[in-house]
Parts: sequence; C-alpha cells; structure tokens
Amino acid sequence: MLEKRTAISVEDALKLATKNLQTGSIEEIELKEAHGRVLAEDLKADHDVPSFDRSPYDGFAIRAEDTHNAKKDNPSRFKVVAEIGAGSIYEKPLNSFEAVRIMTGAKIPDQCNAVVMLEQVKESNEEGQAFFDLDTVIDKHHNISFQGEDTKKGTVLLKKGTTISPGVIATLATFGYAQVWVQKKPVIGVIATGSELLEVDQPLENGKIRNSNAYMIYAQIQQAGGIPFYFGQFSDDFEVCLENMKKALMQVDFLITTGGVSVGDYDLLPDLLKALDAEILFNKVQMRPGSVTTVAEINNKKIFALSGNPSACFVGFELFTKAAINAYLGIPGKVIQHTSATLGVDFKKANPFDRFIRGEIHFEEGQLLAYPAGLDKSNSVISLAKTNALIHLPGGTSGYLEDDEVNVILLKNV
Amino acid sequence: MLEKRTAISVEDALKLATKNLQTGSIEEIELKEAHGRVLAEDLKADHDVPSFDRSPYDGFAIRAEDTHNAKKDNPSRFKVVAEIGAGSIYEKPLNSFEAVRIMTGAKIPDQCNAVVMLEQVKESNEEGQAFFDLDTVIDKHHNISFQGEDTKKGTVLLKKGTTISPGVIATLATFGYAQVWVQKKPVIGVIATGSELLEVDQPLENGKIRNSNAYMIYAQIQQAGGIPFYFGQFSDDFEVCLENMKKALMQVDFLITTGGVSVGDYDLLPDLLKALDAEILFNKVQMRPGSVTTVAEINNKKIFALSGNPSACFVGFELFTKAAINAYLGIPGKVIQHTSATLGVDFKKANPFDRFIRGEIHFEEGQLLAYPAGLDKSNSVISLAKTNALIHLPGGTSGYLEDDEVNVILLKNV
Repeated sequence: MLEKRTAISVEDALKLATKNLQTGSIEEIELKEAHGRVLAEDLKADHDVPSFDRSPYDGFAIRAEDTHNAKKDNPSRFKVVAEIGAGSIYEKPLNSFEAVRIMTGAKIPDQCNAVVMLEQVKESNEEGQAFFDLDTVIDKHHNISFQGEDTKKGTVLLKKGTTISPGVIATLATFGYAQVWVQKKPVIGVIATGSELLEVDQPLENGKIRNSNAYMIYAQIQQAGGIPFYFGQFSDDFEVCLENMKKALMQVDFLITTGGVSVGDYDLLPDLLKALDAEILFNKVQMRPGSVTTVAEINNKKIFALSGNPSACFVGFELFTKAAINAYLGIPGKVIQHTSATLGVDFKKANPFDRFIRGEIHFEEGQLLAYPAGLDKSNSVISLAKTNALIHLPGGTSGYLEDDEVNVILLKNV
Repeated sequence: MLEKRTAISVEDALKLATKNLQTGSIEEIELKEAHGRVLAEDLKADHDVPSFDRSPYDGFAIRAEDTHNAKKDNPSRFKVVAEIGAGSIYEKPLNSFEAVRIMTGAKIPDQCNAVVMLEQVKESNEEGQAFFDLDTVIDKHHNISFQGEDTKKGTVLLKKGTTISPGVIATLATFGYAQVWVQKKPVIGVIATGSELLEVDQPLENGKIRNSNAYMIYAQIQQAGGIPFYFGQFSDDFEVCLENMKKALMQVDFLITTGGVSVGDYDLLPDLLKALDAEILFNKVQMRPGSVTTVAEINNKKIFALSGNPSACFVGFELFTKAAINAYLGIPGKVIQHTSATLGVDFKKANPFDRFIRGEIHFEEGQLLAYPAGLDKSNSVISLAKTNALIHLPGGTSGYLEDDEVNVILLKNV
C-alpha cells in the first residue's frame, strides 16, 4: 500500500527545517584554536586603535612650527636629543629645534606634531651630538598615524555570529582576547541504511554498492562547522534499529539518516519515525533530486532523513541540514547563501519541480558562470566530486537557456 | 647607514618564493580524516559506476517485448515471480509475462530490459499469487540506470593535487578507499619580533601594542593547509635570537618571522639572516603594503620575513607564503587564485607601485564587486577582519575608477 504524501515547497521546507531552532550553547576557547569557529559575543573596541599617536616610518619627530622658515638655501638645523624604538616612550620636555629619532610604530612625543622621514634630512655629527638639516617646510600632522584612526573606542567591530577568519583573529588579539567565547559545535549523528550497502573497505559484490553517503555527510558536517559521529549501518531488524536510534538521539544535537526514506516496502524510516513518535515536519518536497527528504522532530531534536541516492542526499544536506546548523550556530542572514550566476548551458526540458543541479561555478572576467558538474541524476555520485555550487532552477512550464540568469547556492569549497 | 635595496616586481618575487620547491612527502590517512586534505595520487575508476544495470525506482522489472500489445482496453497481465530489495539479486530464469518486483538500486535481472513504476500498474492477488495489469507499451531500456553511465572503468576521476571536498570523499568511498594517500601538511614556524609587542593576555601599556600578527599568521597557516607552530617573541639579544632561529629552522618546513625586517636600527632580521648565512632571494618588492617583505633560503628551507605592520604582514603571507605552501602541497595551477571583479569605488591617486587593497568581495547579480574592506594603511588591523579578497591595482601613472575591471585574489573565507 503506497502511502500518500503531500509535497511542500522548498521555501516552506526550509522554514520547517529551522523551526523553533535556538542558538546552541557557547564555550570559551584559546584564541589559537578559534579559526573557523563562530563568535558568540559582539566585539566592541575597548580602546582606540592605535591607542596613541604613532610614527608610520623610521624618522625624526619634530615640532612642525620649527620648519616654517626652512628653505633649500637656508635649512633648519635640529638637535637630536633622544632616540626611541617602537614600544619606548619619550617623556622629557622638548625645546625648539630639538628632535627625537623615532622608529616605526613608536609613540609620538607629546610636544611633537610631525615626523620627517630619514630620507628627507641630512644627518651630521658634532662631537658625538647628532644633528640634521631639513630644507623643506613640514606641515603640522605630517606622517602621524593618529590615535583612533584605525578604530575608535566603543565601535562594535564584529557581530556575534561572525565566522572567525585570520583577520578576525588579528582583531581579537589586538583587543586582548587570549580566550574567546564561541558557539559550541553541534554534535551530529549519521546512520546509514540500505541492504545494498557494503562498508568502504569491503570488496565489491554483485548487486551491491559501497556506502559513500555516510562518509560524504561526515565531511559535509565538518565543513558546515559541526562534529560528526558515525553510528554505522542499520541492521535489518526493526527493533534493533529503533533501540539504536533512541540511543543515538540521546547523544547528538541533530541526527541524520541516509536511505530507507521512500515509500517502498524496504524503507524503514517512515515506520521508525512513527515508532519513535516523532513529529513529521515534512516528508515530500517539490524538488529534484531529494523529493523524499524527510525532516522530523522529537523532544526538540531534529532528525534529517535524507535520501539514499548520493546526489539527493548531498542536496538534502546542503539545503536543510546546513540551514539548521547555521541557525544552531547563530550565523545570521538568509538560511542559505545564494547569489545569481549566468547559466553556461541549456536546460531545455521543462520540469514542474524546483531542480538543484550539482554545479561547477567558474569566475570568468568578473562574472559567475554556472555549469553542471556532471551527470544530472539523483543516483549519480561522481559529479559530486566537482560540485562547488547548486544551481537552482525553479519549476515551471519552460526550460532554461544558456546565458539565463539563475540563482546558485555557493558551497564552501568554491 | 641605510642599506640600499633593489625592489623587484611582484611577479619575479612570486617566482623566487616558489623557486626549487618540491612537493612535500605523503602519508596515508583514514578517509574520515581526509576532508580538506590534498590528494597525493590520481584516482582512477577501478570499476564501472554503477557496476551493474540497476533500477532507479521501486517497480517491476519486465521484458519490454511482453508489453507490445498492451492497450487501455486490453492490458497485459504479468505474474510476479519474485521480489528483490536493493543488494539482492534474481538469478532464476524468467518466462514471458513474468515480472520481478524490484526496489530502487537493485540489480535488473538478466532477462529483463525495462522497469515499470508501481504507480503505472494495477496490482491484484489470486490465491496468494501476485499479478499486475499494465495498459501501456513500454520501450526497451525504460527506467534502467545502465552499468557505467555515471563513470566508466579506467576513467581518471580525480587528479593528484585535488583538495578533498565532501563530493571527493563520496567518490573515494565508492571506490573503496578506506584509507587515502594525501600530501603531508607542512609544519610552519612563526616568530614575532618587536620591542613594542605585548602578548595577547597582557594589559595595554603606553606606546605598546598587542601582538596580533603571530595569531593572524597562525590562522592563515591553518587556512592554507599547514600546521602552525608558534615559537613566541624574539628576545632583544642578538645571539639568543640567532640560536633560537637555528633551532626553529631544524623543526619546520618553512619559517615565518614578522617584524624587524626594515632597514631601521632596530630591525634585527637583515643581520640575523646574514649571520645565518641565508641566501636572500629578495628583500624589497615593488608593492604596497609589504614592500620590505623578505624571502631567504637556507639548506633548502624558505624563510619568509614578513613586515611587522598587520596589513603588510597579511598581504605578504597571502601572496608569497601561500604560493609556497601550494607548491609544497602540489596544488596545481597558478600560484595564486585570482579572477577579475568590478571596482566598487574610485582609487584616483596614481601609485608607481602595485597595490594590494584589503577588499570585500560581494556577489551581486552574477557579478563580483570589489570594495575596500576599511582603512587602507599598511599598519591597519581592523580592516583585515572583513577582508575576503585582495584587490590588485598594478602600479602606473593613473589611478582607478569605480566600474573599472581589476584583478582580485580570492581568499578562502569568501
């Protein structure tokens, strides 16, 4: 007896996949471990950057007014009264026509208001005392990096939900974050189903295929910022499966299954979800591949029952599980990152359903061009190796032509 | 006394930074650990995918010729002689008007040449024997996923030097790679210099700044696929520095220093490199920021002496160290990944040197638009937090205007 399912739109499915999802818990980690993690608090500048007026060059700090009469044929002579490296400060008084030799990054002495570069002066030495001659007028504030010019105290520099890149790390270090609060990575379980599946290290048998989905999802979870946990393949015994699924659910933040999700006699998932008393949020989506993608919820935990077909499984993860992971991590904005691109080939055949073509995006002369990555069938696996985007072709009564503008979802490995 | 340096072009500097670089050694790792690593061998399909003709749907495998007289008012009746799930095979003979109930992914029985979907037939049961009626003609090869249609045995699927994405993992799993040979990650040492530097956990002092470069480089190394090792800050004692640098060089594949690389009195690096008897490949580049970037070589090991200015340091790494890491990992193609983009703002001021603006790339309606990420000074740190690309403005006699096409180097965190 075929179960009747109601297919919902991709948009509605996305809303349901992230419904009621709260941002997960947070943890404090060492700055060195923070690359790729997600900030759990806004970062506000607690001091100006730079925090003092400083010299951008090696040179001499002077009072600009002492140069007002300097000319080619009548240079101003300055006495060098001190020398400071970066990190040192000069705090004594400074008289007219006195200068401090100053290194890049050092604080401008209080009574100085300009820096002349070494190359601009003629140095001399009289009985151990250094002097230099300067033959041009120097304006006030010449060659000074002013306090706060990079950023002002109180500025919100980084928002909670920002992914931590090397540049973010530099900013965190500048403000003294030896430790940083980040979102905890969600722990995501993976269970494979399917009597046709061999483990990856088993020799090929007639009629069977190796389990590629579990390893693929494992990597997709890592890429999306989660911690994968592989529970192995389901047995054929319903009761054993049910117990294993219950145990798995207690150990994870999300659970992903692959395979067994259709309406066929051998598809365990619908009955398992029923036996678990899980709420089915949807079990059919108006899309290809992955129309049988099912998302359920139990005790506030989402179960993503993805297709056993590799391409359908891949797309189901990138659309729905990825959106849920982003919500859990507090990554703001749209649930999926998309933009538009120019189609590189025709897709002439009309399709009533939304299609997500495994695509290769090329950057060519400032344009994004989208090509299919290979065989466009839901059970294709090889095309996934080259996929760096999903090309979204909304369903309708006509196909798509080369040069049409289409939406694409950029995957992280672009 | 100012040392005279000869500035070389960015192109020449890139060649020197990767000169004589051999691909590093390789290691075999578990497939589950392979995400983000670099393949060390070509992957050739050792069997067809799929490796047998299979059913893409739940349905009935039949002989198409038995349907040639099927009509709405005179359906063909089939006897269901067996049922096979995915992974099972049917090897007995099959007579005319006999069919095998078959699940998605199962092997097509030898004597069948088409599959009809469950929805297309009317099932019935007579004394425990299943039958179905079919009222349309079915063509030979209807609904069959043919052996080798995804990929043919012998095809080179993935080239050595490919970065391992989730889709690559799926392909590796399909061909039974429970372990996979990958390039070893280079171990890259980081040493910070500068008397103005406080460690990240120290309170701010007058005239000093916190060490942000070391942590930034640490993350840049991770992002580029290396293993960072932070040796800490240099002491002010030349002999101690020299000994520490010698020891560091014995532990790493590349060494990066930051700061102390100019020609000022407090810049230790030139003297240290001399004392190490390192060959200076270049110590001045026709670019801003980072003109004093120095690359040296000793015992076949490259030393990247980057500027102490955060932006200059960042750019020096992304241009030169990144290229060297790519070469070490055997990542093919151009030394740096670049494309073109449309400039979002004016850069009217002409500059004789090549400039690398810390930029933000936006995807807008199929176009790449490049904007500066913030304050464009070599000592700026905050702008780096938003940087996802470097905008390359070649030096010359005129500036650049909004809407000009320019080259950009895409960073990994786009």
